[in-house]
Amino acid sequence: MSAGTDPAARRTVPVALGERGYPIEIGIGTLARAGAAIAERTKATRAVVVSVPAVARRYAPTLLRSLREAGVRGTRVLVPDGDASKSLRQAARLYEALLDAEADRGSVVVALGGGMVGDLAGFAAATYLRGVAFVQVPTTILAMVDASIGGKVGVNLGRGKNLVGAFHQPRLVWIDLATLRSLPRRERAAGLAEVVKAGAILDADFFAFLEREAERVLALDPEALLPAIERACAIKADVVARDERESGLRMLLNFGHTLGHAIEALSRYRGILHGEAVAIGMAFAARRSEALGLAAPGTAERLEALLGRLGLPTAPPAFLRTAYLSALRVDKKRTDARIRFVALRGIGRAETVPLQPAEILPAGLLGRRAAAGRRPAGRR
Amino acid sequence: MSAGTDPAARRTVPVALGERGYPIEIGIGTLARAGAAIAERTKATRAVVVSVPAVARRYAPTLLRSLREAGVRGTRVLVPDGDASKSLRQAARLYEALLDAEADRGSVVVALGGGMVGDLAGFAAATYLRGVAFVQVPTTILAMVDASIGGKVGVNLGRGKNLVGAFHQPRLVWIDLATLRSLPRRERAAGLAEVVKAGAILDADFFAFLEREAERVLALDPEALLPAIERACAIKADVVARDERESGLRMLLNFGHTLGHAIEALSRYRGILHGEAVAIGMAFAARRSEALGLAAPGTAERLEALLGRLGLPTAPPAFLRTAYLSALRVDKKRTDARIRFVALRGIGRAETVPLQPAEILPAGLLGRRAAAGRRPAGRR
Repeated sequence: MSAGTDPAARRTVPVALGERGYPIEIGIGTLARAGAAIAERTKATRAVVVSVPAVARRYAPTLLRSLREAGVRGTRVLVPDGDASKSLRQAARLYEALLDAEADRGSVVVALGGGMVGDLAGFAAATYLRGVAFVQVPTTILAMVDASIGGKVGVNLGRGKNLVGAFHQPRLVWIDLATLRSLPRRERAAGLAEVVKAGAILDADFFAFLEREAERVLALDPEALLPAIERACAIKADVVARDERESGLRMLLNFGHTLGHAIEALSRYRGILHGEAVAIGMAFAARRSEALGLAAPGTAERLEALLGRLGLPTAPPAFLRTAYLSALRVDKKRTDARIRFVALRGIGRAETVPLQPAEILPAGLLGRRAAAGRRPAGRR
Repeated sequence: MSAGTDPAARRTVPVALGERGYPIEIGIGTLARAGAAIAERTKATRAVVVSVPAVARRYAPTLLRSLREAGVRGTRVLVPDGDASKSLRQAARLYEALLDAEADRGSVVVALGGGMVGDLAGFAAATYLRGVAFVQVPTTILAMVDASIGGKVGVNLGRGKNLVGAFHQPRLVWIDLATLRSLPRRERAAGLAEVVKAGAILDADFFAFLEREAERVLALDPEALLPAIERACAIKADVVARDERESGLRMLLNFGHTLGHAIEALSRYRGILHGEAVAIGMAFAARRSEALGLAAPGTAERLEALLGRLGLPTAPPAFLRTAYLSALRVDKKRTDARIRFVALRGIGRAETVPLQPAEILPAGLLGRRAAAGRRPAGRR
């Protein structure tokens, strides 16, 4: 991102949820103005900023100063980095921190960081005093376009991810794209998997834009990055506005996630990022969509080509088919034996198809490496 | 309650909350039909029934049988009796029990017991998989008329009551008045404090009914009990329907609770029941209302006379005034230095008045016993 970026380059994406609606404010180098926006949106006089050490070191001083200048007394609370912090134990620590800060119903919880921080801090905000105001300041692409929109907050249990949570909409999402400069390239790419997903399921024009601009987006060139983040946010915001409680349309956002979740679980969430697993899951789902006669030949190839240019993997890790099948069966989105598998009708058009795990993953589909019988990571 | 009670005596109180609305079904000897009603309202095929040992021993077999007969696979989970079970630790145990029962988004959590069970089970239901269906089968008067209406669920933290929670409306409240037969007389009386409250703040006719029928209600005579429970539920349901998120009108339900909470806290929640503390708080608030020139002389006397006939205390325990004042200051309903104190304009008419703790409790008000300087229980 160049130093000469137009500081006036700002976009607002509204999330239309009636009285729970809120704006996503996207800009470059705007962190120092976050405090004023938070004060205006929430009327809070007290803020508890939740972050992880590495992010807090870079960005918490600016955020806390901007809060102070806006008349908001801010307190910083750190949780350890890593998904293990998305726990009831860390939620209990946040409640204690909120009490220490004398946070009341007029206070705000601010999540500064990636998806884990947003989910955990949002869960604390959803449940402390039966719900206090919540603001997201996401610092990863994944959190900007995915985790910070839709109101899903929660923690993991030892026996599974996201098993405890709530729907709690933020009052404001404040995105400063300059915070992405410190994000490792691999995490940038993984976040872009969800950007690609938005185009693949609902917006062929946006997908074509990404095909033209993939390298510039990955390099964080503001002229490509700003519209890419804006459009990805707008697509998700539109889906969430039309289906807040995930009864129908919102299922489409699970494109690539059925196999993706299985891959993450079988890898014990080690060595693979969420966006990488989703990239593999999307490529797989697109190929299955072609094989089922739903999508025209070439659909999967276009998707794989774009993911490849972003440095994302598309080939499933070679776990045993039986391991994949049992991982699919424990996916919590199942309400009966069938899984609502998200298939493509073409680039920009998705739909759900109820399938048995064995129909999603017929024998012989995973290729030679799968046949070689690599076992799940945890069994070593 | 006589064996010859008309089994057809049934009342339905609707709680009008739009798509979150639900019925309160009140009857006598109706527990064996709860399962069919739960199945019909929730369409669940799996139920986790949360209770305490003493209540489960009496009523869980009938409830589980009725669920089974309605095609619902029910599992029983017990938590220890007592308010200490309203904790994150017990909530975590319920999540494990829900996973053990393979509860999914189509399952229902059923609270069988008093307010603690409802609050804890409701919190688990509100947060497990970001919210599953919840049904209350209250077995105390307090839970029937108060805890089971309004959607407030939650747990305590070590540093305070109800500091973590959510608003999660039940799909159904199933009240079988026959379950009150096993309730100790002292707990019956304590529950009736909230029934009296409903009349005192919003319904002078109902208050007069209670003045006529106090002894029969306390004796659980169905002809007096059924209309009393029905009317108390209807009053609270109406308040909740008009103010679901507790922004204004609902504050009136805190009548008697400002001092009541302080008394409970200073007693360390030992030796005094919630309803007893509320009775004392209501009598105090009525006297203060007269002293402030808000209510006509005689208002407090009428209220105290009714509470006395129900065997409820009306004199504040003799803690130091300074202890009372600091307990008032930590009440979580405060959003600034002032407390929204609920005063009476007369029987059946309440309003909130913003007061400083020292205005609520002027020096010299608590009488000789307070002047004697009994210290809070925990300081011994």
